[in-house]
Amino acid sequence: MALKALDYDTLNENVKKCQYAVRGELYLRASELQKEGKKIIFTNVGNPHALGQKPLTFPRQVVALCQAPFLLDDPNVGMLFPADAIARAKHYLSLTSGGLGAYSDSRGLPGVRKEVAEFIQRRDGYPSDPELIFLTDGASKGVMQILNCVIRGNGDGILVPVPQYPLYSATISLLGGTLVPYYLDESENWGLDVANLRQSVAQARSQGITVRAMVIINPGNPTGQCLSEANIREILKFCYNEKLVLLGDEVYQQNIYQDERPFISSKKVLMEMGSPFSKEVQLVSFHTVSKGYWGECGQRGGYFEMTNLPPRVVEEIYKVASIALSPNVSAQIFMGLMVNPPKPGDISYDQFARESKGILESLRRRARLMTDGFNSCKNVVCNFTEGAMYSFPQIRLPTGALQAAKQAGKVPDVFYCLKLLEATGISTVPGSGFGQKEGVFHLRTTILPAEDEMPEIMDSFKKFNDEFMTQYDNNFGYSKM
Amino acid sequence: MALKALDYDTLNENVKKCQYAVRGELYLRASELQKEGKKIIFTNVGNPHALGQKPLTFPRQVVALCQAPFLLDDPNVGMLFPADAIARAKHYLSLTSGGLGAYSDSRGLPGVRKEVAEFIQRRDGYPSDPELIFLTDGASKGVMQILNCVIRGNGDGILVPVPQYPLYSATISLLGGTLVPYYLDESENWGLDVANLRQSVAQARSQGITVRAMVIINPGNPTGQCLSEANIREILKFCYNEKLVLLGDEVYQQNIYQDERPFISSKKVLMEMGSPFSKEVQLVSFHTVSKGYWGECGQRGGYFEMTNLPPRVVEEIYKVASIALSPNVSAQIFMGLMVNPPKPGDISYDQFARESKGILESLRRRARLMTDGFNSCKNVVCNFTEGAMYSFPQIRLPTGALQAAKQAGKVPDVFYCLKLLEATGISTVPGSGFGQKEGVFHLRTTILPAEDEMPEIMDSFKKFNDEFMTQYDNNFGYSKM
Repeated sequence: MALKALDYDTLNENVKKCQYAVRGELYLRASELQKEGKKIIFTNVGNPHALGQKPLTFPRQVVALCQAPFLLDDPNVGMLFPADAIARAKHYLSLTSGGLGAYSDSRGLPGVRKEVAEFIQRRDGYPSDPELIFLTDGASKGVMQILNCVIRGNGDGILVPVPQYPLYSATISLLGGTLVPYYLDESENWGLDVANLRQSVAQARSQGITVRAMVIINPGNPTGQCLSEANIREILKFCYNEKLVLLGDEVYQQNIYQDERPFISSKKVLMEMGSPFSKEVQLVSFHTVSKGYWGECGQRGGYFEMTNLPPRVVEEIYKVASIALSPNVSAQIFMGLMVNPPKPGDISYDQFARESKGILESLRRRARLMTDGFNSCKNVVCNFTEGAMYSFPQIRLPTGALQAAKQAGKVPDVFYCLKLLEATGISTVPGSGFGQKEGVFHLRTTILPAEDEMPEIMDSFKKFNDEFMTQYDNNFGYSKM
Repeated sequence: MALKALDYDTLNENVKKCQYAVRGELYLRASELQKEGKKIIFTNVGNPHALGQKPLTFPRQVVALCQAPFLLDDPNVGMLFPADAIARAKHYLSLTSGGLGAYSDSRGLPGVRKEVAEFIQRRDGYPSDPELIFLTDGASKGVMQILNCVIRGNGDGILVPVPQYPLYSATISLLGGTLVPYYLDESENWGLDVANLRQSVAQARSQGITVRAMVIINPGNPTGQCLSEANIREILKFCYNEKLVLLGDEVYQQNIYQDERPFISSKKVLMEMGSPFSKEVQLVSFHTVSKGYWGECGQRGGYFEMTNLPPRVVEEIYKVASIALSPNVSAQIFMGLMVNPPKPGDISYDQFARESKGILESLRRRARLMTDGFNSCKNVVCNFTEGAMYSFPQIRLPTGALQAAKQAGKVPDVFYCLKLLEATGISTVPGSGFGQKEGVFHLRTTILPAEDEMPEIMDSFKKFNDEFMTQYDNNFGYSKM
């Protein structure tokens, strides 16, 4: 018998099984190096403010006033805050029952959920019901809530794109479910082929798995692609035929860096398809204040909207949300502000528009700088980042590097990324953390380093990479393409 | 085959099983009545700001400045904010890497964890290690994280006091574990008898359950008792002998309304017991910014401290925390402020001391008013609220009321509480939501209504109760005592 109640040996196996590479070995090593005084460029996680992005002024003014409501009675408040921020703070405080210090309804403040519904209706051109919108502490928590309802045991399978954001693999492990992978096609700019999906489902079923839900990440993380309307329609039809709940991770919907393929929500496509699809396909869509040009990651605000879930299921999701009482209220207000920003004519409009445009245009330039930078490197090929905030280059490793990695007891892309980190301070995430085809290697980096530092970072990457390739280039061949 | 993927029938059974009465049938009915225009007094949940408690000024000033850091460069900032709030905001911003908009380390900001460790050290007189302190989005989330590590399946049992706060029963259901009840003794002011504990464990073991952990809530929720040092020592010895992890829910440690039995932390008692206990007993203690005289529920801030957990287990808890990236950063700063409030001599000290003393003294008076009020009612007996923020009177129901409840298809205390709600607008939680001995009935109410409204509320309660008792008093007898 173990000496202690909670040893590693007696820990819940699902806890041990789950992996979250975004804050895994590379991140831990980078944190150590930082403690030792090395300058680290943290591109492992989409955390814009940590890399110098300034917060948008107006929402911060509003939330600061909501935190300090006594300022609203101060005759000097107008010296520090514009009138529209003051008015908006009063509006949000009127939606609470006790300000930011009171628990809200476990689904979030009704008034903010109404603003979210109005936003969705404007965006899609179809009605949205506030009662089917739940606010959450970031989109991740919402994804976990929904998967917790779906997954009953390891016989339940969830279709997840590969490469994927490891929130999905980690949560499925933690909940004891089974991840059913479907592969995105790198040679087609990470496109999604429905034939491939069908094959994944058939294979899972032949192993006795009940496939219950499908995840899409649009724009893609880590892959950066934007799904076309036709593609989303195919996916929805597939979910209809196969009776799958579609989880639409649309947290990067504001982050689009090309004009050919604008973001289209799964909800809009579903509604346009009409009956029977629009009445039958079960869809849960996720959004957040952490991404877009807001980047308010540390506030932990998000929402999900449910379509075609039966009322009793919605009630059960509400019940489970109530156990942790309520999402944090200040992030709920950020969500309200995000879906209902200053309008032309408002005092703060010009500044808000200038700030948000500045961030988005710079991200667009950085997406291009980074893709071009990677493609100029030896044995590196990289699709353009159409959306989201990541670059996911393929690294063709010489067999000499594969052997060296084996000797070091490391997965090859972990080996490469560790060397990169030690040489340059650039902290990335190895492709194996997201899943990739066997024998093919990638890394993920955000496109978030400050624009004026980007050329230097890409030079430093190129110098490391090309020396690495020369060092291990033994003319015996490369990893697969 | 079901038409839809996610019907009630195909929902995770553990989700369906869990119950959370604090926001259950009574709360939902109260919300309906409120929508219909009835004045509702929400005493179902410890949510002080919702019942009019004003936030403490200093922490709100600091967090407002952290939300709007550009104010720190404004020459007029001193007209709205005192110098020590400005200095403290700069301090906390210097602990972040990107302000409130950046994800922190998944365990919370290292600088705030250091402040928490210093607080624990001052409180207990024993060292505390910041690496063993994790910040969380409220204490509930921390409890869920730890139980998720402990519970491997329905063969794992968790000892939970009855009556208990339903966070525990709901989380254990959700995680598929088994709740092993131990009864608190109402006739001994809800004291904890270790002989009773032993019996509970023996019984569970005889049913093949591996009892893995024990929960204590001190001060008690819903029962309001404060554990004595001798009692905590017995509990820790019991955990040592039985190899149980002790989960110490100490969120009400600032809420003490008598002088005989001050709050003593489980950690302090454990350290005082010395070897082998202090080196062996595994303890996780929880705290929050939601309770005390802060009552900052809506901010969602908490921490847990781990004692004697092996490093590999701590690493696994860190890994799981990282899946949801980080707790919200503004509540982390509230936590820093709570454990490190203004000191004598600081500009804001007098105001801070005056505000917090005012709240605590009023709560003490309200605890007394409420206990006395309940004890003046027919067939109601109520222990004094020594701590926490609840009153948990026993309601002796006449057999006529039991029959009427049966006819209405309601549990008897739910029947009583619904009638109370309809008659008076007072929204309570039936004792059955917390667990109670069979045939005995209670309700839980917070002691949080505004002090000047308290006499009227208690009058209204008494009027309803005494009429109810007269109506159903059929001279055939009462529920058990």
